[in-house]
Amino acid sequence: MNILELPVNRYCPIAHSLEVLGPKWNLLILREAALGRTRYAEFQKIGVPTNILLGRLESLVEAGLLDRRPYREPGKRARTEYLLTDAGRDTLPVLAALTAWGDQYARTSREPAMLLVDEATGQPVNLAFTDTNGTVVDPAHVRMIYGPGATQPTSESPSS
Amino acid sequence: MNILELPVNRYCPIAHSLEVLGPKWNLLILREAALGRTRYAEFQKIGVPTNILLGRLESLVEAGLLDRRPYREPGKRARTEYLLTDAGRDTLPVLAALTAWGDQYARTSREPAMLLVDEATGQPVNLAFTDTNGTVVDPAHVRMIYGPGATQPTSESPSS
Repeated sequence: MNILELPVNRYCPIAHSLEVLGPKWNLLILREAALGRTRYAEFQKIGVPTNILLGRLESLVEAGLLDRRPYREPGKRARTEYLLTDAGRDTLPVLAALTAWGDQYARTSREPAMLLVDEATGQPVNLAFTDTNGTVVDPAHVRMIYGPGATQPTSESPSS
Repeated sequence: MNILELPVNRYCPIAHSLEVLGPKWNLLILREAALGRTRYAEFQKIGVPTNILLGRLESLVEAGLLDRRPYREPGKRARTEYLLTDAGRDTLPVLAALTAWGDQYARTSREPAMLLVDEATGQPVNLAFTDTNGTVVDPAHVRMIYGPGATQPTSESPSS
């Protein structure tokens, strides 16, 4: 079943994002791409079964997150590498948010496995909530509410 | 296969987060919880099959993202509602990042379906990358790199 067929999900950007990002391995492939990996053999190291990886890469190309680029190493046959598009690169906040949550609640190593840095300064960067002036807002004060494009339930009271 | 059995994923906070957040429906359940839903009948509206929902809710309780609370409406039997814990509430940046990506790349409605607001001011709030001083960093300058806790591939050059 396509979850977007459900009225409550049809206009939900989270449900739409999960259509592309939700299938197993896709976010780990995008993690590797964000870390600079581009080649099939590099993506294989995440452990995705060989009979699945190519389909995953091609589905990310079709969804506009990766671009194919041919390359050839000396003495080898031509191969394809996969580079993040702008849409693929714009998943970085998703990866950053998953990293932050995992670091806080599921870290198994005493040091962070991944860091976000400002390439201009090398300094660490974090995700934060900011207001329209760019001022950081305490996350405890942030609420998710329905926007004007939502198809809200017809009643706020639970059916039971 | 447990993806955490793979060396490259064992210390990856994204892989750990996906163990909890990755199973289908979990992020949509957390979306509903973030929007203030607490009750079984409310979560059902996302379209999760009835024979799956209870298991999903209980797995999120076990993972520490939801707490059970009994309630009873007049003339009805006692029921359980599910409330976000701190760990559950701290998935808000994940939901926010998925919302932002979906709004940019997959929006089907002309208006956003969900908004983040500062409850103190009612003003819209967005995710941003900030440096340690709280200054917003241009996302184009943000890079993900391996941190000290990573188990890096032994070679940076691809095997082929």
